This record gives sequence, structure tokens and C-alpha cells, in this order.
Amino acid sequence: MNSFGRKFRVSIFGESHGEEVGIVMDGVPAGIMLSADDLRPDIARRKSGAKGTTPRIEPDKPVFMSGVFEGHTTGAPLTIIFKNTNTHSSDYSLFKDMPRPGHADYTADVKWDGYNDPRGGGHFSARVTTPVVAAGTIAKMTLAKVISERYMIDVRPSVEATLIEIGGEKDQTKWPEMIDSIVKEGDSMGGVVECVIKDIPAGTGEPFFDSVESVISHAIFSIPGVRGIEFGDGFAAAKMKGSEHNDPFIADEVGEGEYFIHPSKNGAGGINGGITNGNPIVFRVAFKPTSTIHKAQTTYNFAKNEMDSLAAPGRHDACFALRTPVIVESMAALALADLVVLQ
Amino acid sequence: MNSFGRKFRVSIFGESHGEEVGIVMDGVPAGIMLSADDLRPDIARRKSGAKGTTPRIEPDKPVFMSGVFEGHTTGAPLTIIFKNTNTHSSDYSLFKDMPRPGHADYTADVKWDGYNDPRGGGHFSARVTTPVVAAGTIAKMTLAKVISERYMIDVRPSVEATLIEIGGEKDQTKWPEMIDSIVKEGDSMGGVVECVIKDIPAGTGEPFFDSVESVISHAIFSIPGVRGIEFGDGFAAAKMKGSEHNDPFIADEVGEGEYFIHPSKNGAGGINGGITNGNPIVFRVAFKPTSTIHKAQTTYNFAKNEMDSLAAPGRHDACFALRTPVIVESMAALALADLVVLQ
Amino acid sequence: MNSFGRKFRVSIFGESHGEEVGIVMDGVPAGIMLSADDLRPDIARRKSGAKGTTPRIEPDKPVFMSGVFEGHTTGAPLTIIFKNTNTHSSDYSLFKDMPRPGHADYTADVKWDGYNDPRGGGHFSARVTTPVVAAGTIAKMTLAKVISERYMIDVRPSVEATLIEIGGEKDQTKWPEMIDSIVKEGDSMGGVVECVIKDIPAGTGEPFFDSVESVISHAIFSIPGVRGIEFGDGFAAAKMKGSEHNDPFIADEVGEGEYFIHPSKNGAGGINGGITNGNPIVFRVAFKPTSTIHKAQTTYNFAKNEMDSLAAPGRHDACFALRTPVIVESMAALALADLVVLQ
Amino acid sequence: MNSFGRKFRVSIFGESHGEEVGIVMDGVPAGIMLSADDLRPDIARRKSGAKGTTPRIEPDKPVFMSGVFEGHTTGAPLTIIFKNTNTHSSDYSLFKDMPRPGHADYTADVKWDGYNDPRGGGHFSARVTTPVVAAGTIAKMTLAKVISERYMIDVRPSVEATLIEIGGEKDQTKWPEMIDSIVKEGDSMGGVVECVIKDIPAGTGEPFFDSVESVISHAIFSIPGVRGIEFGDGFAAAKMKGSEHNDPFIADEVGEGEYFIHPSKNGAGGINGGITNGNPIVFRVAFKPTSTIHKAQTTYNFAKNEMDSLAAPGRHDACFALRTPVIVESMAALALADLVVLQ
Repeated sequence: MNSFGRKFRVSIFGESHGEEVGIVMDGVPAGIMLSADDLRPDIARRKSGAKGTTPRIEPDKPVFMSGVFEGHTTGAPLTIIFKNTNTHSSDYSLFKDMPRPGHADYTADVKWDGYNDPRGGGHFSARVTTPVVAAGTIAKMTLAKVISERYMIDVRPSVEATLIEIGGEKDQTKWPEMIDSIVKEGDSMGGVVECVIKDIPAGTGEPFFDSVESVISHAIFSIPGVRGIEFGDGFAAAKMKGSEHNDPFIADEVGEGEYFIHPSKNGAGGINGGITNGNPIVFRVAFKPTSTIHKAQTTYNFAKNEMDSLAAPGRHDACFALRTPVIVESMAALALADLVVLQ
Repeated sequence: MNSFGRKFRVSIFGESHGEEVGIVMDGVPAGIMLSADDLRPDIARRKSGAKGTTPRIEPDKPVFMSGVFEGHTTGAPLTIIFKNTNTHSSDYSLFKDMPRPGHADYTADVKWDGYNDPRGGGHFSARVTTPVVAAGTIAKMTLAKVISERYMIDVRPSVEATLIEIGGEKDQTKWPEMIDSIVKEGDSMGGVVECVIKDIPAGTGEPFFDSVESVISHAIFSIPGVRGIEFGDGFAAAKMKGSEHNDPFIADEVGEGEYFIHPSKNGAGGINGGITNGNPIVFRVAFKPTSTIHKAQTTYNFAKNEMDSLAAPGRHDACFALRTPVIVESMAALALADLVVLQ
Repeated sequence: MNSFGRKFRVSIFGESHGEEVGIVMDGVPAGIMLSADDLRPDIARRKSGAKGTTPRIEPDKPVFMSGVFEGHTTGAPLTIIFKNTNTHSSDYSLFKDMPRPGHADYTADVKWDGYNDPRGGGHFSARVTTPVVAAGTIAKMTLAKVISERYMIDVRPSVEATLIEIGGEKDQTKWPEMIDSIVKEGDSMGGVVECVIKDIPAGTGEPFFDSVESVISHAIFSIPGVRGIEFGDGFAAAKMKGSEHNDPFIADEVGEGEYFIHPSKNGAGGINGGITNGNPIVFRVAFKPTSTIHKAQTTYNFAKNEMDSLAAPGRHDACFALRTPVIVESMAALALADLVVLQ
Repeated sequence: MNSFGRKFRVSIFGESHGEEVGIVMDGVPAGIMLSADDLRPDIARRKSGAKGTTPRIEPDKPVFMSGVFEGHTTGAPLTIIFKNTNTHSSDYSLFKDMPRPGHADYTADVKWDGYNDPRGGGHFSARVTTPVVAAGTIAKMTLAKVISERYMIDVRPSVEATLIEIGGEKDQTKWPEMIDSIVKEGDSMGGVVECVIKDIPAGTGEPFFDSVESVISHAIFSIPGVRGIEFGDGFAAAKMKGSEHNDPFIADEVGEGEYFIHPSKNGAGGINGGITNGNPIVFRVAFKPTSTIHKAQTTYNFAKNEMDSLAAPGRHDACFALRTPVIVESMAALALADLVVLQ
């Protein structure tokens, strides 16, 4: 389904080439000071236009349709929409006839008996993550408000994701050249994003089905193109000994005879038994290379009823992973806001 | 929370050293032929006793408390319980005073203000996965029944997980020696489990928040000790080019002029855009090494208010990953049963 | 929260004097032929303008923002919005200072710390039921499609509600005069709506928490102004003997030696043990008189900090029950569509 | 489904003549002092044995299977079970062949393809409400704890239901004779229960789909045999004028210059716009007469394939409404506990 969360809940809608994409947020606390300008910095980070990203540029102007009054959230459902303006739909039948390898063209067609909107990937388009990013900003504000009020101190939890690798390369100085090269080839690259979340109180999350990892991974795998997620030491933990991977608890003196007890390292990524331990929550997300490429690929041609070769025309990201850090942050913020609000 | 699923829904309960552990299943179709014997093979696979696993041995006898009548499921909630018999609770206060590094002792205490049942890890114990395995067997039966009836053919979807690596080693012939050695050291090891699910119809799953990956990962991360999950090419996909990672569609002639269209390889792990494409669903899960080890570790002693050293006494798995394949299968089956029933 | 349903799920948003009111529908089957024109008849039934209803007239033009492509539903979230055009917001501060007796002015203010949008009742306005009516039409179509396909016969379930009483009077010929009189008095009247739902298959619904009555009443009580609901014989059943209230099963010969077994009367309103028995589902809903009246009422003046008298200015329905039958139908259709889709 | 609540969530299971009936409660706060003795007073109120109730007497001994440790709730799922002991199953096939008019025999059979457990009504038996009553007591404790902690005052919200009418008669002195008479006739009677809930803070509940009335009615209609519910003035409100039904706000001086603002009467039953206004929540519930009666009724005999006459043998309540007040309280407490915990 297209909604997420139990109390801080979002519902997304829209298609790549439809009228608009949007999100309805339920459970946003009343009284958060909020203007469209507050949403712009995160939205800008998702924008295309840079090298390696699609030349489709949208104004990405967020409009509040409900839930904001006189510069504050009201407590009622908050709706944000983005008009779609820069849409070229002429050639969409191509992918209906010849589904792109790796894309949802084929599965959407099977699932919805051919009635899906195929233009630009329809509802499966990364375009639908634009309102998710707007909601993510509000989720970050919600975390700050709820935690600050509950603990009666001024806390500003941070949720920060960065791209740490593309095409297998961690050294950023080599990236521009790699991108040039892949664009020239008409091919695409993937990447890895790391997200660090600070100042979430210990004790957040639930054992078993609402473990922090369960809820975050649920949200993260709803981003198109994710292939894996790992927390803390991640897959490397499977190669470690307990004595290496476990995080010893230590005490730091923080005042006269006052001690702060915390794990001395962070192999667990801030989570034990599904519940935060006060350390930063750390996880990494693997993004696959963009499915749509100019390079010719084998696929089935349903119009001709034969195997065929497809060199996908049109605009697309050679490395959409470049645009994903803020989407990862947003999904993580939505997941945590729900857990914290429910606490 | 301790329940999972929208229509095929399970609720788990119990503690390691309480009266019993159990599961309530809602939405199990009526008319499945079912006896306690049907549950035993999977339960046996989870059992301890082998080298590298805890010497705590429970009879693990499943008892139906509701939902089964005259050898068939009734459609009403189906409850399965397992009595706890082999419990030694004498020394539980130790971990309340000195939380084990890597374990939920500390976070449970923070979350529940010290009221959590600490005996044997309480509700955080892997003991609670016993009824999950019983439910998993029923989920597999449900998949077979629902898919067979919907498509009016006799399909027996399979969900099979295997341990493919422990302590970083893929060669199984070396495992016995590794286990001996780690037991001797009083330390522990992790491992990686691969799960392959066959014969789930194309078109299962939803875009975004109920993507197959979202729902499976949500269930998998509720297993204690999971550090990562990846689908298909997984993290390796982030290093590949689109032309390598994408799965071309090809046509196999399956009858006179009849073709079966399918991806020629399985980099996507059977899922495009969150929806199954008919290929086997393939994912891998990283398990950390067991937290509880005999080897001394630094932790805080809350009774003495000082840092201390803990050499955990008692029984535990040196490599609990050995017992997890059937748990992974069960969680995957629960996730898929809900998706398929909702389809 | 502002969403309803487990698989056929709606989320509503908007305020009386905001930009727009709307609804996002998740789980609408793909392939339903649908145009804005299909929605107009039901919407017209909700419209004001007739005697006893508010003179605020809105064009009530439904616009699809997502989920419809080339005249069919796509399977993706379907969004319908209605622009607000005829809004006079000048005097809204009055009800913030002096909450209307019987209205949500006071409770909304308490709940949302004064941040609620007070214009025209904000999110609590009956205006928000406009998109519910549009969704109800689609829910009726969904019922027809799903039931027809499942039973492989062409069924068109009907959901029909009528006003059977206003101001305690069942005789419709007296209503026009009663309305004239109440308008002159500056007062308001309530009414009772009866809803009859036909051709829902026996076996729909669940025991206990998803009983048909539970799910319908949940939806109905979300309509502003509902004070009671009763099924079948309703409150009168509490005065009857079992031998009077029970519905005997009888057999009608429907073909050569073929019998249709059904209850001979309908004291149960079509539901036994929470599950439909094949009879029409019948229930009645009590609507209170409109809260906002021109007649002076005592209330507290928070601006002056004293008790005061309020004669509410502005436009309102003298008997909003006149406009509710289609809203009752819509809510019932949403409830049943979810139950039937989940079946 | 058989679960209810979003954060304070219960799942019920069991059948009349199965091993046991029980409930799993998720979201119970840790640290509530609790013993089985605390549950007995409410359970005793539900017990049969009095005139007009079934002679089946069960010990109704609650046993905690999880979630309680050293006399306190732990925060983990809390499971309570009741063993079934006094079961006579010999004659159950009768109602499978000849479904009782008004009972779920027929609909359960249709829904579950004949696989339902028919003994004593199976999962549809009022027996399943025993654990609901136990959970209701804990819900009342939860309300007291959560509200007291949130507002930092000692509040003990009360939830009290009483039978105000049986067989259409409000005068309790006439009831014993009426019951004698109906038992002699082999017939049954219904009744009306009124519930009053005090000290729930203003601002509880949500507009639209989680209105207090929606959530309470959802829970109440899951009690077997409910035919209607009304809040405050209820159905009578539909006959009133706004000026009569509306509750004026007034101010009572509660200290030097300190005023308590509240509605001067309670036509709204404590709820405006779905949200509590601080007044007592008041609602009434109509219970039908018991379906199972000794008196002969017409029904279809599926064994003989003909219409037949059924005089139900066995034990049953002549007026089960006598036992329902505590069940109504319990369901209301569950509903409010979820709303308050979510607040």
C-alpha cells in the first residue's frame, strides 16, 4: 500500500506524468512553525541537473493544500503537492511494448492488468519521492519538537545521509571522471549511502516486529532501486567474533560524580534488541545502477511477439544514487518520527 | 509491537523463562489439514544440542490452543504454545546489574523502567522464535493453498534457507573445526543465511511501502541478531553497471508457439519495483555473533556503580546462526503469506 | 486518524476554507472505467441550496489528480480533489472567542492548542464529506466489480439510504412546512436516515473486531453529527422476545429441486455473529440538529473571560440531515468495500 | 479480525469448548502492579449462575502466561488465559444440521466452508468475552496510570455500565418475575445497558475516522448480540431542536477568580466533533434477546434437506443482557485506553 506509519502516517500519490505528485501527512503535531521555504533546502538536494542526473528539471515548488494555517501546522492532515510541468509523454508506448530490463514496466503491467499509467514509469517513478522529501523535513521537525517537549530540554536530533561510494569507488575525487565515462557509454552506475542519526533517546523502538531496524528497513526498501541495507558493522559482523563485534559499556564522567553510561563503540549501529541504546543510529543502503540506459539491452517485444533489442531513448539519471541521500534521510526520519511519537 | 501482517496476522508472546511462549495467528484460511506432527520437522531444524549451540534443550512440543478442530484449521484465530520446561533462573540478577555488551539487557531496562523480565533475556530471547517457526510452517501451507486455489493449478511454493557462511568462511568442511575452536575460546561467531523462494506468482507486492523487499525486511529484522539484508545482487549491485545488473527479458518456447517470458538472470532477486517478476525471490541475511560469551568483556556494573568485567556464565549458542535458517524461512513465509492473501 | 480501511483504504484531508478538500484512495482495483461524470450524481445529492440547507453553494467539481489514466483506474492511489471557492472567512475569530455550543470549536481548540484552522469549522466541517461521497461512488463500483468477478456472475450490489424522519416526523408531506418554520425561528432540526444494502454475499465480515456492524458503525460515526446507529430491529430488539426477534430460516424453491435458504424476515439486519447472512443489510442513523443556529445561546466568551450570548451569524443548514443520505451510503460503501476486498 | 487497537492492542482467541480462551495484550505500560486477584471482581460480574443466566459455570480463573513478573507488568505482551472445564460437546452436530435462527451457526458455516468449530458456538461464543473482561480491568488501570502521569495529578477515571432496562421494562423490581416467566416459556429477553465514563481529559479522540464514537462503537459492536448504540441524547436528538440539544458552555468559579469552563448539560454525551469535551462520556447499548431458546422455531434441516422445527436443548442464558454491563465497560475501556495512549 501507499501509506506508512501508525500515528505519524503518510500517504503518497501521483505519477511521473500526471497532474501532480503529493503526500498527505496524518499525525503531525499542531503548532510547528512551517512555511514552504522550510522545505526548499532538502528538496533542492534531491534536484536533478548536475552531471550524471537527468536533464528533466522540475520547479519542485511545494504547495500546502491543507493542515497549515497562519504559518503553523494545525494538527489536521497536512497535504503537500508538487505540480508536474516538464513532461514529455509522446513515446511512452515504447516501454509498454518492450519492458525495460530491471524496471517495473513488466511487473506493473502484470499486477494491474495493463491499466497502469506507463508514462515516465507512472506511479513507480522516483518523481514520487519528491513529496517524501518534503514530508521528511517535517518529520525531522517533529522529532525535534516531540523529543524536546518530552524530555524538557532543547534537542535537535539530526538525520544525515551521505553518498560514500559510487560504482565501487569511495574516493570522491575520481567520481566526476567516472560519471563522464558512464554517460558516454550510455550505461549507468549504482552507489552506497550512509545515514547517521543522532540524539534519538535510548529506549526507542520495540522488540520484534517494530524493532528500529524493521521499521527503518521497511521505509528504506520503499525507495525505488534499493538492493540492501545494513546496520552498524552490517554484513561484516557476520565475519567477526562476539568479542570484536560487541560494544562494551563504559562510563564517562560528565559532572561531579555524574556518569554517562554508553557503548564505547558502535558495532550495533545504535540498536540492541531492536531498541536504541543512545548511540548514533548508523546504517548503509545499496542502490543499484539506474535501469534505464541508452545502451542496447535484450528484452521481449510484446507488440511483435519476439525477442528484441532496446536502447532506451529519453532522459534519465546515469547514477540516480547521487540524488538519493536526502531521500534516505527522509524515509529514516518518517520511520523514526512514527516510533518516537508512539513511544 | 508484537504483531505483524494486515490480514494474515501473527501476534507473539512469552518470555524465555516464563510459563510458555506462543503465537496467535489470525487470517489462516479454514480447511487446511493440520496436526502437531506437521509442525515438527521445521521445529526440529531450530533445535539446539548440536555442536556450537546451547545445551539448553526444550521438548519444543507444539500445542494447539484454538483454531484447529477435527484435524483442520477452522478459520478462527489459531494459537500455538510451547511450554518452557528447562529454565534455570537463579542467576538472572547478574545481567540486570551488569548488562551484556551487544545484548538487549540495557535497552530493555531503559525502555521498561526496569520492570522487564530479565530471566534468560525475557521477551528478547530467541526462545520466542520457536512459535514463529511453527507459524512459518502454517504460512507455507497457506501459500500453497491460496495460490493453488487462485490459479486453479497445484502449486507448492517453496521457501528454503541455508547457511552459506559462518565466521567469514563459505567452505562447510572447515566449519566443525572453527566451531570447536570458538567454543574453546569462550567466544562466538556469526554467519550468513541465503533464502530462495520459488513459485510466487508475478505481480505480488505493492509499489512503495508494501514492496516485497519492505515487507520481507520488516519481518527479517525482527529476528534477534540480524545486521543486514540484501536482495539479488545486493550490495554488489552498487558496484555494477546497469548493463551488467539489469536482467534481460527472454522468451522460452514452452509449447507449440507458446512462450514463457522471464528474466534471463536474477540480479533483481525476483523483484522489480517492489513487485515479483516470477523469478525466485532471493535474499541474504547477515547474523552477528552471539552477544553472550564466556570471555570477559567490559561493561558497567550498576550495582557497584563502576566499570567492571563480565564473563557471562550459563548456557548459550557459540554460533546461533546455525539455528537461524528455518527462522528466516518462517519470517519470509509469514511476510509472503500476508502479501499473497491480500493480493 | 484520517484514514480508514485495511486494503481498500481512504485518507481524507482539507478544511472548509482552505485551498481544497480531497481524498486519496488506496487499493482501488485497476481497470474500473471511470470519469468525473460518474461521480456527479452522488455529489449532486449532497449539494446544498434546497430549503433548509446552507446557501453556500460550491461548484463541487471533482478533479482526478492521480490514479486514473485513459478513462480507467490504474491500481495506483486515486486522488480526487474539490477546490473551495465560495469562502467568507472574515468573521471566523468569533467562534474562536465564543465556541458554539454543540460544535467542535472548543474541543478542536483544546486538542490542537489553539492552532486549528477555525475558518468555517476547519477540518471539522461537513465540507470534508464531499470527497467522501466521491469515494463512495467508487466504492460502490468496486463492490460490483469484485463480487461479480469472484462469483463469476454479474451482480450490482446496491447501497441506498433515505431520510425517513426529520424533527421526529415521518410524514414527508409535513416536512416543507416544518423546515420553513425552523428557519424562521433561527433554530435547527435533526433526522433519521435508513440505509439498505443489497446483494452482499453471505459470509462477509469477521467475528468480533471486524464484525460488519463494527466496521460500518466505525465509518458512520465519523460523519459529523451522528448520535446513534442501530441494525435491523435495533433498539426495539431489546424489548422483544427471542421468538419474535430471531429470523427463522426458510427454503424457497428457485428451480427444479433447487432451494434458496434464507431468513424469512430481517430482524438481524442481514448480519449474524458479525457476518452477513445474505439478507439486505439494514441500519438506521440518528443525526442531531445542526449546532450552528441564529438563535441566541449561552456560551463562554474567552476574549472577555465571561459568560456571554451567541447568535451565530453566517450561512448554515437548518437541517443538515437532509443532505446526509448520500454520505451515509458512501461511508457504508467504503466499509463494505474494504470487507469484501479483504474476504 | 480478532485484534483491536493501534498501540494498546488486544488479540483474542479460543472457542467455547476448546482448551482455553485467552487474550494477548500489546502496549500495556510497564510497571503496573498486577495480580490475578485484581482481575477477579470484574470477572465475577460477568459470571453466570444467577436467575436468567446459563447454568454452565466455569471457575473463570485467570492465568498470566506472559508479561507479568514479580507482581508488575513488564511492558512485553501480556497474555491471560482461562481454561475451559465445564464443556458438554455431545450434541453439537445438531446446530450444524439445523442452524439456530438468530445465531452465527449458519453464517460461520458459510464463511468457513463448514470447517468452523461448532461446539457451543465455537469462536462466536460469549465465552470469548471472558478474557476481554480481564483485559478491560487492565485497560482501566492503564487509563489511570497514563492520565495521572501525563497531567501529573492523581486521576482515577471510572468506566461504569449498568443495565437500565430488560424486556422493555426499566423498573428493576419487576425484573425477577419477568425472568421467571421468560424461563418458564423457554423464551428469552434483551436489555439496554448504559455506560458512563468519567475523568477522561478534554481533547481525547480524533476528527473523522478515529472519533471517540467511531472507536467505542467499533469495540462495542464486537460484543455478540449488540443491535444498537447511541451517545448522549442519542436517537432522541434527531427529534430535538438545536437550541434544545446543544450544550451551552458555562463557567463555574472553582477558586479565587479561577473558572472551570464546561458544558452545562450533556446532550452530546461528552463528545463534540469526535473529541471529548471533559464531560462524562455517556452511551447506551441495545442487546437483543438470546438467540438460543427452548421454544420451537422454524429452521432449515441441512441433514434432511427440508424445513424443520428446532427446540434448542442445552444450557443458555434466558437474558444474557444481565451479564453484559461489565463486558460493555471492558470494551469501552479498551477503546479509550488506545485513544489515550495514542494521544
